[in-house]
Amino acid sequence: VERSLIHAIEEVLTDRSGRISRWTGDDASVVRSRPFAVTSIDSVAQDVHFRAGTPPRDVGWRALATALSDIAAMGAEAGEAYVSLALPAGYEGALELVEGMEELAGRCGATIAGGDVIRAPALVVTVAVTGWADAEEELAGRDGARPGDLVGVTGALGGSEAARLLVERGAEPPPDALRRHLRPEPLLAAGRALAAAGVTSMIDLSDGLATDAAHVAARSGAELRLRLADLPLAAGVDLMAGDPRVFAATGGDDYELLVTAPPERVEDASRAAEAAGTTLTWLGDVTVGLGLVLLDENGDQVPGLEGYEHA
Amino acid sequence: VERSLIHAIEEVLTDRSGRISRWTGDDASVVRSRPFAVTSIDSVAQDVHFRAGTPPRDVGWRALATALSDIAAMGAEAGEAYVSLALPAGYEGALELVEGMEELAGRCGATIAGGDVIRAPALVVTVAVTGWADAEEELAGRDGARPGDLVGVTGALGGSEAARLLVERGAEPPPDALRRHLRPEPLLAAGRALAAAGVTSMIDLSDGLATDAAHVAARSGAELRLRLADLPLAAGVDLMAGDPRVFAATGGDDYELLVTAPPERVEDASRAAEAAGTTLTWLGDVTVGLGLVLLDENGDQVPGLEGYEHA
Repeated sequence: VERSLIHAIEEVLTDRSGRISRWTGDDASVVRSRPFAVTSIDSVAQDVHFRAGTPPRDVGWRALATALSDIAAMGAEAGEAYVSLALPAGYEGALELVEGMEELAGRCGATIAGGDVIRAPALVVTVAVTGWADAEEELAGRDGARPGDLVGVTGALGGSEAARLLVERGAEPPPDALRRHLRPEPLLAAGRALAAAGVTSMIDLSDGLATDAAHVAARSGAELRLRLADLPLAAGVDLMAGDPRVFAATGGDDYELLVTAPPERVEDASRAAEAAGTTLTWLGDVTVGLGLVLLDENGDQVPGLEGYEHA
Repeated sequence: VERSLIHAIEEVLTDRSGRISRWTGDDASVVRSRPFAVTSIDSVAQDVHFRAGTPPRDVGWRALATALSDIAAMGAEAGEAYVSLALPAGYEGALELVEGMEELAGRCGATIAGGDVIRAPALVVTVAVTGWADAEEELAGRDGARPGDLVGVTGALGGSEAARLLVERGAEPPPDALRRHLRPEPLLAAGRALAAAGVTSMIDLSDGLATDAAHVAARSGAELRLRLADLPLAAGVDLMAGDPRVFAATGGDDYELLVTAPPERVEDASRAAEAAGTTLTWLGDVTVGLGLVLLDENGDQVPGLEGYEHA
């Protein structure tokens, strides 16, 4: 890989962390830590996670957003991102791709602090992100949901998937849905505020509510019962065929947060979400049992939505 | 990607760090830090960095070794690795690949603490590794070489590249060269010992001595003058056509360490290397100037070897 590309990439990066003592140009980056490092790694590949025509800036933004959303879901503060670009011969979008990442990093106070650029037969973008916390109690995992807790979700669901399908059909999605699809915003401030407000568990909705809520149930050893009728629907979901609530429960890539909280924490959590610029919709509760149960408006159980495919 | 594969991968991982409070199964891993995090990310792609027939265990070992070698070159202690596997449909080697990584991680006291598995059109393996240090003074960068310093390299050079070429030709490399090629050992103990012994700069030889020594010269703002006749030659280099010293100076993937040290530190550094199971060969010095100069046995400058290709 040409030195000139690596140099051009280094030129667009900004150190926002104030903690970096060595970064590009050495064997490894050196960062002054805080007590707990919170790290996630995520990859996206062309023709699997995005189409060949996707603007490189959007590819970069989304790749970083996916990793930062995991940091948000732990309640950690965004720190440094390490980026690896596997580029096919002749690919011209590498610098723009990093510029898209850098744009999101700027919004989130994150710093791209190191990377690797290789030749490869296909375009694959990998981002490892480290966030920081001063104490374990500041963080929320997937395993803390307890019988008696209520279940809430931030924002609205299904918009990203609706936009993806509309674009695929050559239709124009509502602007909010398109933004959710192309440039999702990791909810870092909301994640920290919710963890501080005492939520017992938290997860980001990357695979869809039905899948991700089941992860919380499995890891917590509890049953989550969610009322489909109370799902907050994103713009664009109304344009989809079938039951919009089922669509919103199964559409992925929303990057909203699902939380559980004991009743006495619900008000604090709602206020924390609002202060962070979003809303919390309470749509279920945690009971003794194991797994996820989705309920229709009559309180009857909806058949499993695992593996549900959007036409 | 099937849950069963991810589950099988999680089953082979061992926590060796004693610092991990959350790892697989949550949105992100949580690790109790030490004061300085030292992080590198590296990718390898099939058909670019290794051939389709390479045993998956060797692919995994090498991918982790490449990243750990960067940690070694800083003088940091190995910590946690985060692994992303981009797998083509039908690829069967993922679990063995992780087992190969885990084998090396076990030898190095590293822990694979998180990961991602995606479908992709090509096999790309990315490893982000974090090492740790208690103080910045424990670490050595590329930028500390000073006029008057001597230049040393650990071990022997050219073996990995010789083995690669011999395998390509259907010949059998010497066992030591083949091991260097397929299962390079990151010199973590040597790196820490050399940094503690007061080397002024350090780099791992991944691209070859001629290229990597030039990085140290550029980052240090100094001239490195190396005597080719003093290069320690690895087994297998004698089987190559042309000048074996030029071959050893340009062959990549040795993962030996190059250091600079003031004369009063040379003895300590040599002892430190020996205590860590390797040797240091002193083969040059640092002068006022900028760049790398290679000298033949008469002290005459050898023409530049940048971009030198092995036939």
